[in-house]
Amino acid sequence: MKQSLTELQTRDLQHVWHPCSQMKDYEQYPPIVIKKGQGVWLYDEHNNRYLDAVSSWWVNLFGHANPRISQALSDQAFTLEHTIFANFSHEPAIKVAEKLVTLTPDGLNKVFFADNGSSAIEVALKMSFQYHMQTGKTMKKRFLALTDAYHGETLGALSVGGVGLYNEVYQPLLLDTVRAQGPDCFRCPFQENPGSCQAQCIQFVEDELRQHHEEITAVIIEPLIQAAAGMKMYPPIYLKRLRELCTKYDVHFIADEIAVGFGRTGTLFACEQAGIVPDFMCLSKGITGGYLPLSAVLTNDDVYNAFYDDYGTMKAFLHSHSYSGNTLACRVALEVLTIFEEEQVIDMIKNKGERMRKLAKQAFEELPFVGEYRQVGLVGAIELVANRETKEPLPSEERIGYQLSKRALAKGLLIRPLGNILYFMPPYIISDDEMDFMIDTTKETIMQFFEEREGVSCSNDNQHCHL
Amino acid sequence: MKQSLTELQTRDLQHVWHPCSQMKDYEQYPPIVIKKGQGVWLYDEHNNRYLDAVSSWWVNLFGHANPRISQALSDQAFTLEHTIFANFSHEPAIKVAEKLVTLTPDGLNKVFFADNGSSAIEVALKMSFQYHMQTGKTMKKRFLALTDAYHGETLGALSVGGVGLYNEVYQPLLLDTVRAQGPDCFRCPFQENPGSCQAQCIQFVEDELRQHHEEITAVIIEPLIQAAAGMKMYPPIYLKRLRELCTKYDVHFIADEIAVGFGRTGTLFACEQAGIVPDFMCLSKGITGGYLPLSAVLTNDDVYNAFYDDYGTMKAFLHSHSYSGNTLACRVALEVLTIFEEEQVIDMIKNKGERMRKLAKQAFEELPFVGEYRQVGLVGAIELVANRETKEPLPSEERIGYQLSKRALAKGLLIRPLGNILYFMPPYIISDDEMDFMIDTTKETIMQFFEEREGVSCSNDNQHCHL
Repeated sequence: MKQSLTELQTRDLQHVWHPCSQMKDYEQYPPIVIKKGQGVWLYDEHNNRYLDAVSSWWVNLFGHANPRISQALSDQAFTLEHTIFANFSHEPAIKVAEKLVTLTPDGLNKVFFADNGSSAIEVALKMSFQYHMQTGKTMKKRFLALTDAYHGETLGALSVGGVGLYNEVYQPLLLDTVRAQGPDCFRCPFQENPGSCQAQCIQFVEDELRQHHEEITAVIIEPLIQAAAGMKMYPPIYLKRLRELCTKYDVHFIADEIAVGFGRTGTLFACEQAGIVPDFMCLSKGITGGYLPLSAVLTNDDVYNAFYDDYGTMKAFLHSHSYSGNTLACRVALEVLTIFEEEQVIDMIKNKGERMRKLAKQAFEELPFVGEYRQVGLVGAIELVANRETKEPLPSEERIGYQLSKRALAKGLLIRPLGNILYFMPPYIISDDEMDFMIDTTKETIMQFFEEREGVSCSNDNQHCHL
Repeated sequence: MKQSLTELQTRDLQHVWHPCSQMKDYEQYPPIVIKKGQGVWLYDEHNNRYLDAVSSWWVNLFGHANPRISQALSDQAFTLEHTIFANFSHEPAIKVAEKLVTLTPDGLNKVFFADNGSSAIEVALKMSFQYHMQTGKTMKKRFLALTDAYHGETLGALSVGGVGLYNEVYQPLLLDTVRAQGPDCFRCPFQENPGSCQAQCIQFVEDELRQHHEEITAVIIEPLIQAAAGMKMYPPIYLKRLRELCTKYDVHFIADEIAVGFGRTGTLFACEQAGIVPDFMCLSKGITGGYLPLSAVLTNDDVYNAFYDDYGTMKAFLHSHSYSGNTLACRVALEVLTIFEEEQVIDMIKNKGERMRKLAKQAFEELPFVGEYRQVGLVGAIELVANRETKEPLPSEERIGYQLSKRALAKGLLIRPLGNILYFMPPYIISDDEMDFMIDTTKETIMQFFEEREGVSCSNDNQHCHL
């Protein structure tokens, strides 16, 4: 039943063009106007609340309007909100840089701040390219990226993306990226098990590197989870073998940890699980706990030194954004990193992850139309399929994931899907009760939907659900 | 004399890679660590203060740590810091969108939020391109931009930039942009006076449009001031004629008001002075009064409607950033726009602009090595030259602007130059005394420097200064 619009909804629809949206969809589902946030919950104008199971696009770590983080931000606002970051600096940025260097894999000693994720990717691409120009490898003008990759929306970042939904229409504007088939553990072409495989599929990358390495400056990858592709997960061994290939073929390894960094995968950074050190690590999203745009690119001394010379040599990296190293955002990031130190967050993620895995497997694995439940850290994904045996996808034109998410929303659960993949990426502070609500509501939504769609009834006992 | 480093400076240099910097320069001039801000002043570790005459890269409008803005930010932080902006909304974004639509030229009815300036440019480029793809003009795949333009640092934005310093090394990664010679009122090829000319130089754009209009999707321009090029200023008639050409040749007009918007040029938006309506207007920087990264692209219903259709047509604009429409940044922007309404800011800018113009002309116009003092609104620029008659530039390898700025810094004045152009772009709340200090200190710095360089003495009376 379509509700009448509130005044704010009407005003929104008059002037706001929302991101990643077909605005015509809003005719049926007008924007929900959020008035306040608390913990995992967002509250709308009518005081309905929604459990933010996607952490507002994967950014929130410690809950909405977290009092500790808000206090730090407030204090900073009354002291110093921002200063130009060329030739100037401030304590929050210095401390964040120090902590990042300490927390990331050894050798990533230098921190270049930008202000959003796409820009961090562009910084890494440009740095890698310019590095090779300045070290005599002037043939290296292309990047290698995986199918189904997502690295952001600016044209450089989009050029290394591989999700057609986002970049297909823009092809004439994009770089000629070398594309290698990425890992696909759900439909593994080698019929391997991700728990035991040796990442045979890395051969697709090696094929391209063997052929093109002289013209490739860097490989870029989302470690462990290709998130926008539908939370496609793959084992650490893949990263380990990719690191070996990058070294062998003399190309940079760019780790895009924008979505997976800061604990999401159960370790502070996903690269840790493979024991590798990338040449560039891009960080954003969770770096401010979901408060403010900020990003950072970490790199090593070798890269830094290739730009370090007398001004007249014109080797400097002249990239900047007005708000590079923004003081407010750095102060928030500092608080977030301090919470990680003081509150055993990684242990908490591991424990909650185990609980979520157990409950979700129980809830979803035997459901009809569920091809797989998969999880890494506190990221869980339900892949819906037309046929569990053949793994045949559901027809995309039905927009089943979308419909499910709208039904879940009516029950107070925010799960924005990726095609026909539903996923959980809740704030780390989610309680047991809240996790139960998230999983139970999702299960109920799926069951009700497919019962209606198929015109049959599922009992609450999965074992007896036959469609 | 080189000072010894403070502990924070040492720590900064160990890990922070600063934007738009040759880090080797920092050996001689280590980063100044700012502890607090107040009004136009930034205070370092030793409580030395610096008048921020560049508004921290052109972002600050109402002073550092402005109590009113900080209070609004603080309140918002304890209520709702951020929410996903797809299918969700919040009051600050809605109100900012409404105000922007009201304040910008008629017809710009839709507001797409992003989170930094470069991204706003990329949004406009992508929207214009996709618009033409979706309205049957599939030949339109190139952009037209001016020489000496600057539009940001991501690869799309950099592709339409024309300042070699920033994009030359990246040429192999950039789009094949159609480039037209831009206006140059200081060295006008037609020997015209910007006060009375009819923008003959628009013919360079028309030549390109005549030849390439079928393949050009949009022209992008910085209205009234090519800022990064060295505050190159040109009269509104140029924009008026460009608007006519865009209409005639059926290409979009993208106004990059990121640096010049929000009062900088003496009107709320620079386009107003030409009485034109662009197809896209990109805003950022001052939108948050210098607090936080936020950007917005405004466009018209025609563009919006070309994307508005059933989902299955795949016409949606799927661009997004995690922090698109960030609640905290929108709340700050709302406060900034409210200050504009309540405090007659535009009048204030005009009055202070007139005062600055008078003082600066007096101070600089007769100085040796000053080729021109020019000003629009509260942006003033001193173009230093080797020869006032021939306008021969000073040798760039001497980095005279840079040296001057370092000397000014020692006197408590922050003027980061653009090559050999010094400029003033102070926060609007600058007082008379502060303005006097800014101008007097700059004059003193220039005179002392050139006295030493030339080995002669200038009296304080400009008329008797012979070098």
